[in-house]
Amino acid sequence: MNITVGKEITDENLVDLRSTFPDVIFSSVVTEPEAIGEADAYIGRIAADDYYRSGERLRWVHSTGAGIETIIAIPELVASDIVVTNTRGAHAPFVAEHTFALMLSLNRYLSKYAQDQRDHHFHAYGRGVPMDSLYGKRMLILGMGNIGTAIARRALAFEMDVVGLDLQIPEQLGGEYPILSMTHLDEELKTADVLVVTVPLTAETENLIDARRISELRPGAMVIGISRGKIIDEAALAARLREGTLGGAGLDVYREEPLPPDHFLWETPRLVMTPHCAPSSPDTRKREFEITRENIRRFVEGEPLLNVCDKVAGF
Amino acid sequence: MNITVGKEITDENLVDLRSTFPDVIFSSVVTEPEAIGEADAYIGRIAADDYYRSGERLRWVHSTGAGIETIIAIPELVASDIVVTNTRGAHAPFVAEHTFALMLSLNRYLSKYAQDQRDHHFHAYGRGVPMDSLYGKRMLILGMGNIGTAIARRALAFEMDVVGLDLQIPEQLGGEYPILSMTHLDEELKTADVLVVTVPLTAETENLIDARRISELRPGAMVIGISRGKIIDEAALAARLREGTLGGAGLDVYREEPLPPDHFLWETPRLVMTPHCAPSSPDTRKREFEITRENIRRFVEGEPLLNVCDKVAGF
Repeated sequence: MNITVGKEITDENLVDLRSTFPDVIFSSVVTEPEAIGEADAYIGRIAADDYYRSGERLRWVHSTGAGIETIIAIPELVASDIVVTNTRGAHAPFVAEHTFALMLSLNRYLSKYAQDQRDHHFHAYGRGVPMDSLYGKRMLILGMGNIGTAIARRALAFEMDVVGLDLQIPEQLGGEYPILSMTHLDEELKTADVLVVTVPLTAETENLIDARRISELRPGAMVIGISRGKIIDEAALAARLREGTLGGAGLDVYREEPLPPDHFLWETPRLVMTPHCAPSSPDTRKREFEITRENIRRFVEGEPLLNVCDKVAGF
Repeated sequence: MNITVGKEITDENLVDLRSTFPDVIFSSVVTEPEAIGEADAYIGRIAADDYYRSGERLRWVHSTGAGIETIIAIPELVASDIVVTNTRGAHAPFVAEHTFALMLSLNRYLSKYAQDQRDHHFHAYGRGVPMDSLYGKRMLILGMGNIGTAIARRALAFEMDVVGLDLQIPEQLGGEYPILSMTHLDEELKTADVLVVTVPLTAETENLIDARRISELRPGAMVIGISRGKIIDEAALAARLREGTLGGAGLDVYREEPLPPDHFLWETPRLVMTPHCAPSSPDTRKREFEITRENIRRFVEGEPLLNVCDKVAGF
């Protein structure tokens, strides 16, 4: 059996895979690009050029991250019988923590106090600073996969009201919080104190949070974007932040990455920005690799793979 | 019945009290200082001078905040039959949120990314930044009152291991996390990833986290101080932060407040500082006043008061 690995697999990972699966011939797409012609599987976000050089043996492509949008941008791959899997679930606790970091940074005015710290200024008791809290607020989560679920669990402990919306998960009204179909978006938007965007980028979610929906957010509401930038109309969001009619926004993802130095978002008030690092933690790569290795074991032994994606739905 | 109120009671609160309790004569210690001689109760952190001018009718002193250390600094008041109450419980969700804000700011390197935002610099994926997470880490909470309990609840949702220590609460081993007696402090310190100090300041807790105990924290551990500054040896903490052998620290309280501009803490690396604002929220004053008003109702009607403090224990 032949498996080609992309640049996402480190040298150390490759040594591990070769020793764990001695009967598999692993080749790197970087150092042995021609080997893909005989590969049974590809581990990594396969590039279109590499895909077009693959042969009939290719049956499986595994993304070492959660997003598969570059893979499903290859129409022939989507139309084929090739199975696509990802490492969803590896990132959920870290993205959930980052979501709370962004919300709490805004509510607790951490950037103001960081400036005071640089100035050696003790603004006693934060008097007059409009500090806010999550307690008792209503959180609307778009996308109730692993990440949305991890965020909901934490929000409940913060004594928030939680409503989840999802494109595919059946409605659930009996649990600790309701999960509704995405058709409820327009009505739920109007009562949300915090809108958290965790849906993957697909044809259905691109521009989902457009200018009209942003205009309907209540005064003081907060928006957190942590999945993909193309879901949110950044210009409309920035306009409301400049008007001062939102409580704040936290973005980890952008329509254009890397975000250019002259982009209007950088100077938007009440916006906390991080550079697509929500999934980062010392454990993230390890957890991703554990899922990758387990899926290779299943592939080698002919068992059902974990995290099989719907290539048409896009995740 | 006569009640004197301190400067903590706003004019608006006083109008509310007078209309809610028309049979009570309320006087302000600011505008009618002599009235305290006939007062049955004092609402606010009574100053020693005011206490010495009170008469034999004084039976109750109510702190509109959680700390009572200025009240129990009056020996004659501690020795008397005067009941002391506070508004504990009003602040717990906000202090708990602030605790997470401090921890997540450190772990998610928010001050670094805020600087990048000011510089219009997109540090893609935070590559090379040692971002960390709370997931799976061990949190040791000193003080399992309302605030410690609110923090524990949130930490469990963040998938942390939690251990609580308390000076008074009986040991509890069967719940979602153990609560142990404070005698376990030295052994528990050595395995904690996060130490959260929520105990009130009393003779027993002053300097509890001294230089020796700070030296025994494991490499990479984090310290959060959110109750009173005199519990932690700030110089020893700053020394370990400068050595780079702690993961970070977050302080909202200090041995000296307001912290002077030339204090060594301001320039300590990996330290996030806020100015005793952890309890702040739009609801805090409202929640405090609701407890205060309910206690006045109980006092007027001869019912048992809420939040009776142990003047000797100090909280």
